[in-house]
Amino acid sequence: MRFVVVAGITTTARINGVSAAGANPDVLVHTPSADLEIIEYGQPISEDIVPVSPTGCPTPAVVTRAVCELIGFDLLLLDAGLARSTAAPTVAIGTEPGADIREAVPVPTAAEVFEDARRLGRTLPDDELMIGETIPGGTTTSLGVLTALGERAVVSSSLPENPLALKREVVNEALAATGLSPGATAGEPVETVRRMGDPVLAGVAGLVIGATETGTRVTLAGGTQLIAAAALVRHAGVNAPLSLATTAFIAADETIDLNELATDLSLAVTITDPKFDQVDHPATNAYLAGEAKEGVGMGGALALADRSNIPMRDVHEQIIAVYGDLTGDEPSVDT
Amino acid sequence: MRFVVVAGITTTARINGVSAAGANPDVLVHTPSADLEIIEYGQPISEDIVPVSPTGCPTPAVVTRAVCELIGFDLLLLDAGLARSTAAPTVAIGTEPGADIREAVPVPTAAEVFEDARRLGRTLPDDELMIGETIPGGTTTSLGVLTALGERAVVSSSLPENPLALKREVVNEALAATGLSPGATAGEPVETVRRMGDPVLAGVAGLVIGATETGTRVTLAGGTQLIAAAALVRHAGVNAPLSLATTAFIAADETIDLNELATDLSLAVTITDPKFDQVDHPATNAYLAGEAKEGVGMGGALALADRSNIPMRDVHEQIIAVYGDLTGDEPSVDT
Repeated sequence: MRFVVVAGITTTARINGVSAAGANPDVLVHTPSADLEIIEYGQPISEDIVPVSPTGCPTPAVVTRAVCELIGFDLLLLDAGLARSTAAPTVAIGTEPGADIREAVPVPTAAEVFEDARRLGRTLPDDELMIGETIPGGTTTSLGVLTALGERAVVSSSLPENPLALKREVVNEALAATGLSPGATAGEPVETVRRMGDPVLAGVAGLVIGATETGTRVTLAGGTQLIAAAALVRHAGVNAPLSLATTAFIAADETIDLNELATDLSLAVTITDPKFDQVDHPATNAYLAGEAKEGVGMGGALALADRSNIPMRDVHEQIIAVYGDLTGDEPSVDT
Repeated sequence: MRFVVVAGITTTARINGVSAAGANPDVLVHTPSADLEIIEYGQPISEDIVPVSPTGCPTPAVVTRAVCELIGFDLLLLDAGLARSTAAPTVAIGTEPGADIREAVPVPTAAEVFEDARRLGRTLPDDELMIGETIPGGTTTSLGVLTALGERAVVSSSLPENPLALKREVVNEALAATGLSPGATAGEPVETVRRMGDPVLAGVAGLVIGATETGTRVTLAGGTQLIAAAALVRHAGVNAPLSLATTAFIAADETIDLNELATDLSLAVTITDPKFDQVDHPATNAYLAGEAKEGVGMGGALALADRSNIPMRDVHEQIIAVYGDLTGDEPSVDT
């Protein structure tokens, strides 16, 4: 099993109100780069920026890192288009950030990213991949993709109050800019990403397709962004079994119906409840208030912890330890 | 502890007779890229090229991978200038291959690689780094560096018969091309690499300097190339303790005197004997005939196995298993 995180950024994320990633625009653009460093090293190392939401909710990368420290899975981090460099080791699958989906062609490199990822997916020697993402504003581009494909156009949010009306407005403007009607690019996954998506969706979809071509089992680790990636895979004509591992926060999100979405796309769903109600800590409390919900493979990491019979209280302790390293005033370098 | 491998290539490696890496020039240029994939995945995945010497000796990456499979250390792979892309995740610290040292400025990016690596070395959160290399023809550029610094100018070889006379001829031509006399760049490590070295030496030296600045313990994992990197570090005025972990094949190499070299540069040396004389297998026999000797962190990996009390016969079994995956006709993808 290899745990893959596909990272990228778009200027769609800069639209005021669509993303909870980053306490300000500068943190936002650095968030996916820092997320990769947190997964790899336990902390951001290239810049002294800790990705937290405007209210202080830490990035879900903390949860994924905590589980990785407990069970030690193999990692693969993919740069599908970061704007800020990362000191985490990555494989580049197209290095252009996406533009704003309200432009005519927000992801001109979609075909290239898709093909690079597909080739990588075919060549990875693992029998199982778990694939997550980190891209601010990713639910908005996912809504664009689901709309253009003609799929059920609902997505979750990393904010407690899902700004779905704002996202729909952005997607409507995007449709107008590209001259597309809903469902216009059904069956054309690359064209869909090129005109309505983001490079991470191209990367995840390409990787899944390549992996399934060689019989690799794939679990999508995340929420509605991974569902949008699954939709792209299905619209490429791939009928291979696909799983989705997500959090109880996504399952409880009333703006979406996870069962309906999963049924539409033939996804076998695993929901893991991290039982954050049994903890009282800044690292976990914001999730109980509806923030973050998912991201950076969190749902997949929790499913792996569960599969390895790690008690959730051990996961809590490790999350608190990682959060302490991130935010505490301990020196970041052991001497 | 984090195990770092710095990879790169130069056109110096193409000089006929200096390197045992690669059965032909095409394999040679792909060797460091494939070495990283072998360490990361257990096999080359992006191209169907297995790095073996002209006589069939497998790359020492097999040994490092085998130990990694046994004890599971954290890896960090650095691209200091590869000519062929690798599907292994890397951090780029300057991505220009080096030219032939017989040109006036074979490593124009030396200062940039050095600084990138130094910054990374300062920021890595580990208390200990073990640093190896993979760069064909690296002992020739190392001889150039030792000569220009005015250090004892001897190096080992991955060939059974060390072509030291050829290497000295190349270095003499390089000195003539740059207008340098032996010892001319003493105390100037960046200038030394820029005019006589390779990008991997700049990367290793920068990384060591950055790491020691923040109190990180450093072990250089390899032979005379790592000794050349240590010389660059000492010529930068760094007096921090440094260790060298190498193989018994380097210690037994009559063309060098490991003790003298280590004394010159204040290196604490650990020599590990992999006891290949207790095995009879193509994966190990070539070492007994004097080939390879070291590389891709092999000596460091063996020292780690020893430190973890892994019996050498377990290491042998794992080496044979990795070699089987590399060369066998088993399918590369588990289904």
